[in-house]
Amino acid sequence: MWKLWSEEEKFRTWTKVEWAVAKAQEDLDIIPKVGLSLSLKRLLEDEEFWKDFPKKVEEREKIYDHDVLAFLSILEESVENGGNYLHFGITSSDVVDTANALRLRKALLLIKEELVGLAKTLYRKAQRYKYTPVMGRTHGVFAQPTTFGLKFLTFYSEALRNLERLDRVIEEISYGKVSGAVGNYALNPPEVEDRALGMLGLKAEPVSTQIIPRDRFAAALNVLTLIGEMLERLAIEIRLSSRTETGELQEPFRKGQRGSSAMPHKRNPIKSERLTGIARLLRGWALAQNKSVALWHERDISHSSVERFTLPDSTTTLHYALRLATGVVENLVVNERRALENLQRFGDFYLSSVLLKTLTERGVSRDIAYNWTKEVSQKAHDSGTSIYEEALKHERITETIPAEELSKILKVDFNRYIDTIFARFKPIP
Amino acid sequence: MWKLWSEEEKFRTWTKVEWAVAKAQEDLDIIPKVGLSLSLKRLLEDEEFWKDFPKKVEEREKIYDHDVLAFLSILEESVENGGNYLHFGITSSDVVDTANALRLRKALLLIKEELVGLAKTLYRKAQRYKYTPVMGRTHGVFAQPTTFGLKFLTFYSEALRNLERLDRVIEEISYGKVSGAVGNYALNPPEVEDRALGMLGLKAEPVSTQIIPRDRFAAALNVLTLIGEMLERLAIEIRLSSRTETGELQEPFRKGQRGSSAMPHKRNPIKSERLTGIARLLRGWALAQNKSVALWHERDISHSSVERFTLPDSTTTLHYALRLATGVVENLVVNERRALENLQRFGDFYLSSVLLKTLTERGVSRDIAYNWTKEVSQKAHDSGTSIYEEALKHERITETIPAEELSKILKVDFNRYIDTIFARFKPIP
Amino acid sequence: MWKLWSEEEKFRTWTKVEWAVAKAQEDLDIIPKVGLSLSLKRLLEDEEFWKDFPKKVEEREKIYDHDVLAFLSILEESVENGGNYLHFGITSSDVVDTANALRLRKALLLIKEELVGLAKTLYRKAQRYKYTPVMGRTHGVFAQPTTFGLKFLTFYSEALRNLERLDRVIEEISYGKVSGAVGNYALNPPEVEDRALGMLGLKAEPVSTQIIPRDRFAAALNVLTLIGEMLERLAIEIRLSSRTETGELQEPFRKGQRGSSAMPHKRNPIKSERLTGIARLLRGWALAQNKSVALWHERDISHSSVERFTLPDSTTTLHYALRLATGVVENLVVNERRALENLQRFGDFYLSSVLLKTLTERGVSRDIAYNWTKEVSQKAHDSGTSIYEEALKHERITETIPAEELSKILKVDFNRYIDTIFARFKPIP
Amino acid sequence: MWKLWSEEEKFRTWTKVEWAVAKAQEDLDIIPKVGLSLSLKRLLEDEEFWKDFPKKVEEREKIYDHDVLAFLSILEESVENGGNYLHFGITSSDVVDTANALRLRKALLLIKEELVGLAKTLYRKAQRYKYTPVMGRTHGVFAQPTTFGLKFLTFYSEALRNLERLDRVIEEISYGKVSGAVGNYALNPPEVEDRALGMLGLKAEPVSTQIIPRDRFAAALNVLTLIGEMLERLAIEIRLSSRTETGELQEPFRKGQRGSSAMPHKRNPIKSERLTGIARLLRGWALAQNKSVALWHERDISHSSVERFTLPDSTTTLHYALRLATGVVENLVVNERRALENLQRFGDFYLSSVLLKTLTERGVSRDIAYNWTKEVSQKAHDSGTSIYEEALKHERITETIPAEELSKILKVDFNRYIDTIFARFKPIP
Repeated sequence: MWKLWSEEEKFRTWTKVEWAVAKAQEDLDIIPKVGLSLSLKRLLEDEEFWKDFPKKVEEREKIYDHDVLAFLSILEESVENGGNYLHFGITSSDVVDTANALRLRKALLLIKEELVGLAKTLYRKAQRYKYTPVMGRTHGVFAQPTTFGLKFLTFYSEALRNLERLDRVIEEISYGKVSGAVGNYALNPPEVEDRALGMLGLKAEPVSTQIIPRDRFAAALNVLTLIGEMLERLAIEIRLSSRTETGELQEPFRKGQRGSSAMPHKRNPIKSERLTGIARLLRGWALAQNKSVALWHERDISHSSVERFTLPDSTTTLHYALRLATGVVENLVVNERRALENLQRFGDFYLSSVLLKTLTERGVSRDIAYNWTKEVSQKAHDSGTSIYEEALKHERITETIPAEELSKILKVDFNRYIDTIFARFKPIP
Repeated sequence: MWKLWSEEEKFRTWTKVEWAVAKAQEDLDIIPKVGLSLSLKRLLEDEEFWKDFPKKVEEREKIYDHDVLAFLSILEESVENGGNYLHFGITSSDVVDTANALRLRKALLLIKEELVGLAKTLYRKAQRYKYTPVMGRTHGVFAQPTTFGLKFLTFYSEALRNLERLDRVIEEISYGKVSGAVGNYALNPPEVEDRALGMLGLKAEPVSTQIIPRDRFAAALNVLTLIGEMLERLAIEIRLSSRTETGELQEPFRKGQRGSSAMPHKRNPIKSERLTGIARLLRGWALAQNKSVALWHERDISHSSVERFTLPDSTTTLHYALRLATGVVENLVVNERRALENLQRFGDFYLSSVLLKTLTERGVSRDIAYNWTKEVSQKAHDSGTSIYEEALKHERITETIPAEELSKILKVDFNRYIDTIFARFKPIP
Repeated sequence: MWKLWSEEEKFRTWTKVEWAVAKAQEDLDIIPKVGLSLSLKRLLEDEEFWKDFPKKVEEREKIYDHDVLAFLSILEESVENGGNYLHFGITSSDVVDTANALRLRKALLLIKEELVGLAKTLYRKAQRYKYTPVMGRTHGVFAQPTTFGLKFLTFYSEALRNLERLDRVIEEISYGKVSGAVGNYALNPPEVEDRALGMLGLKAEPVSTQIIPRDRFAAALNVLTLIGEMLERLAIEIRLSSRTETGELQEPFRKGQRGSSAMPHKRNPIKSERLTGIARLLRGWALAQNKSVALWHERDISHSSVERFTLPDSTTTLHYALRLATGVVENLVVNERRALENLQRFGDFYLSSVLLKTLTERGVSRDIAYNWTKEVSQKAHDSGTSIYEEALKHERITETIPAEELSKILKVDFNRYIDTIFARFKPIP
Repeated sequence: MWKLWSEEEKFRTWTKVEWAVAKAQEDLDIIPKVGLSLSLKRLLEDEEFWKDFPKKVEEREKIYDHDVLAFLSILEESVENGGNYLHFGITSSDVVDTANALRLRKALLLIKEELVGLAKTLYRKAQRYKYTPVMGRTHGVFAQPTTFGLKFLTFYSEALRNLERLDRVIEEISYGKVSGAVGNYALNPPEVEDRALGMLGLKAEPVSTQIIPRDRFAAALNVLTLIGEMLERLAIEIRLSSRTETGELQEPFRKGQRGSSAMPHKRNPIKSERLTGIARLLRGWALAQNKSVALWHERDISHSSVERFTLPDSTTTLHYALRLATGVVENLVVNERRALENLQRFGDFYLSSVLLKTLTERGVSRDIAYNWTKEVSQKAHDSGTSIYEEALKHERITETIPAEELSKILKVDFNRYIDTIFARFKPIP
């Protein structure tokens, strides 16, 4: 991924755009067929040629203070034929922004690949732990039993939503332009644009200024941020579950790996913590990109210093983060025994909802039923007994629910609809 | 719009959800048909009933410290029949989040209405000023001529993209849930959810925790932010163009309106400046919402204090902003005469690109052609003459382009493809 | 606090500024002493007068579209004498921004009061639990023992830093201006400013544009954000420690309070979760305020729509949050027994660092000592034994540390410097 | 600056901290004086040694997955004597965070140097253009005349405020810690910390967790953001003033520099636009840093991936931006002639405030005086005449102000207090 954002690759992509424009102009008889597009194609195929290209441009840029003009100057010196027809009647942004689209699309496709990988891993885990019981927690406090599978499934579901969003923004940023300095095709007819972008696999921006409208880029980074939020949610699930007292999940820990310089006993969820940090960075980059939509008139170049960071940093970091997350999930230690112990250790409080429901069902007012249930469940909690035991001692409750029924009622399978929920999802092919 | 976010409307919507759940449970014989749903329906139809409802709940909340329980307690006291079956086996979030979806959807639909209104106005303006010339500016500096119509068209195009994004997030947030405390239908079968949400016009979240996953809400606020960015771009266009020296656009100024307490002569683009400020606020709200995706396990309630501000404030403010923007555009003063003066006042510099192109066309190397053109255009600028005059004096140029051709070449219609560009767009029906 | 940001209070404060300016101008014989300042003073003292003032201004504003001019128009009608000398030679922002400073300062002072209250409460708790042992956790994983007192002390220390920061920004925002439309005292000499601001207890901005430079406000909101971050850190400490498995801290839970509509057994740290959400909002508001520093030339009014939200919302919400936090800390349930159980339940892993240190002290290379220690501590963890037992079985270790010494060495008081640390802090008087 | 954030420099700084700790421990007889600190000192003085150090650590890290342990392992192999006493009883963060403080302080001092440079340049420019007239603009619209000097002075004043803020956060981040794994000096007495940090020129954090509290870092980045906002304000002043129609300021343009690939005539304020973009990035980085204050318990490591970007990127970029800004201001073209033309070209509207003031002074009600003034100034604007001419025609005005006085009254020197304002400022020594 970093390679994609290297100076070398930047200049190659710019040249690719210059090639497509030259070819289109030759085809349309706008420039004579003296071999410019062929010369450019040859350069593009010559791996060696590009190695020291960035250095040459850098030197020239010191004079021109304009990167594209420095690039063009070196490129013109390098092509065999038709150099004077290079960049014919087009503007810097025709090249730079079209190349931007090409590179960002490639970056998003790489991210998509990793996101698909993560989604598949999540689905496999969901299947594998479909029925494995674990306490569901709201506010960090025991609520009602659920299963690990269901937990993984919520992440799979979120990944699917993000995949859909990613697909849309890949579509959204696949637009180039060869419409000139202010977007009105002043020096080249629209046909050049159509033809050139067609060769590059991009669509033509229906109406542009000097550049591609930046809401496309902002929309893309907003989706990267949402993927980051998903990773943070996953990371928090793992971090919370691998706390010493909980101990239900543990990040894979390689043999040889060390956890702490002072405390050799430690196994820390550092990868998940890293994901948490990355989510914060993504928010910051997206913010800068959003603020770069509103440029002046036909463009100002303030977005450029922004994108020098936001595009490579956000895509590269998220790409890395997705790979990291996939590795963590793939090899995550699920401590089923510990999950069960936790579930049982703190009694049967979670049955309070069942008791409440049954009482109202038998005609007790909600408000009163609530008070009774709260009484017995908090008594159970404070005295270390169980809801069942306390309910048996509660006269008003046993008046409503005979003691013999009580035990039956409090045996409820919280997860009897797991299959129904899973049936709503299909694996990614 | 503010009404939508009032306490009164909140409780009505909650009651609407309780009604749908009760009706579904009656239909499925989960609760007996003693008239609960009918009682609720009657309450919903009684406008008067809701007026002092918020105050009653507020009182009760002081005891319970739990808004939904206070609400239920009052509601149970108010229904004629079957009060004990109210909220039967469901959890607070089943109500709150489903109601959230209903209200947010309504809010987004109101926003959509305004966005459509703005888009139409932009299109009308684009049509009206299709061929009206104005100088295109990049970096704030004169670049090449364009038309006001093309400018408006870029905004129309951006509005269309945002409409598409808005439609998608309206879809994305139209999900409710009645899946219980940890999302596994522990106390109510999925059929209740299906049936109840069907009555409310929502889809069922395929797998939820205690709540609807928050990436849906974040995605929505990210789109509101993008709409804000568009408004800021529009605002900056107007603000820059209404600077005293430029004077090409002017915000409508009502008779009687006053511009400054000290300077009675002033007419300031304050509405556009307000739009600029609103874009900043939207970014901040979206940020808080994005950070609320990653909740703990089956949920923590940190998103709730966030949404108490973000949902009403962002939707209400954007709704207002869109209406404001539409009014500004609708009555915008386009000073065509001034635009023409500006275009002509600062000479023919913008012809430099034409000269450059023609020189390379005639075989001059790009780099050399560039230098010649820069020489003559900057000399023209500094001495107040024109590119044409200076080019005539430049021997190397006139060697390449005979003097008699020069004047012909420099007469170029920069906007000859306006119709082609416009043909790519259709009005919104 | 909300009262401070009401329309009524806004107009009173504006009038207070008009009064100070009029008084200064009378004193300096710039306007004749016909009783304007006295008339204004009387209005200011008349509580009743202000009740329907906002409504009157609102009506007038519909005509003028300028809030200050509408306000002046009503005020001129209300003063007994010298109405024509009202607002003499000054500009709207002289009034609005000076009043802004007055109100924001008052708001920050109210916040300071609450922050002092929280800091004192934290210090009391630190003292009370100075030696109460609790496991220190890094990465959520048991590290080494510490004390609750030390934990509270870190929050007290952070509160002290934030108090210092708050004091500085109170200083920073205590600047007004009466320097006219572009800051050059075109129509009133600097003496008016000096004298008027002196009466209001503000300093004069040494060089202003039309308004007070906005970096002052941004600096203030950045500090509010930092206070929010502190509250979030506190909230996370409480939320993590009140997880069912950890159970060391618990938010105060009033009798009668209800935790969940479906699960009557629950006691959730909802106040701390609320604080977490508020920290997110503060970040968003500060962001919008920061972006409002760079205004155009002598000012544009884009900051105004921003500040209509950011100033009241951020100060009011933080004020509320600080009070909430103080209540939570004040009545926080510290479960000492549970903390001790946790400390003991998971063995003596935390002694690994002591073992490592002792081995290197006796000449073993760090790298090798690390490996040995890791071996025994992980073996102890996996087999449920103790580091001590496993070390005894490890030949290389017992070669280095004789068995008889080992038990002595592993009895270390991790908290023997608690007094030293506490001695660095004094209570707030 | 980039060098400061290189891997090589990181490891050198870590070693410097290890050296200070070892020296302190030797001095305090905690470790034997076998030459460890001397060995470390020698390594630190050996420039060559560090060149391939990063690569070696990288290799080792692949095994340990822990950067500090990999570093220590290589360092132990490299020291001549006492390697086993390296890192004696301290924790990774004692080294990393103390080194962080050292590096961040150095970075902020470099930034301060540049900020001082910019401030001095701004002051020089303020002095030089002290009396040079230019139209003051509010809302982008002509308001009242001011001077370029006063404009520069507002930036100088803002720079001074930021310098003060910067000084404070340099103070705030100059804290290190050698307090062990959870901050309670479990394995090393506070004396080691005092002594070691003293040698490094840092203060000891009065109470730490495993790490230095992150509000210190967040406070620092918030100040960097404010400096960014100042640069953006400066950039916008330049960008607006160098618009073709305004033409009062122009960024320095080197000979040979090229402005546009298609339009050789252009001279664009690209450096100022770059500054605008950088301000956006700084906001994003500060945001991520702020969110990293609230870590879990005694620390989690989520801040680390954040700081890997935020610290180097924000300091390096701002350092560059300040240097860039200084160059721009130093060589800024101030087109005095053009400023004067603009001032005169659009009439004498700005005199409206003088007329208004004089009318009220002579007893006309403010509201009525306002209407008269608005009438004549807008008539003047629309018909291309002057306020003076229109006022002469306005019967009610000339009844109040005799025609012969009018011309005298309307000759006002708006800038007669320039010296007074300048006298409030001193140059930086």
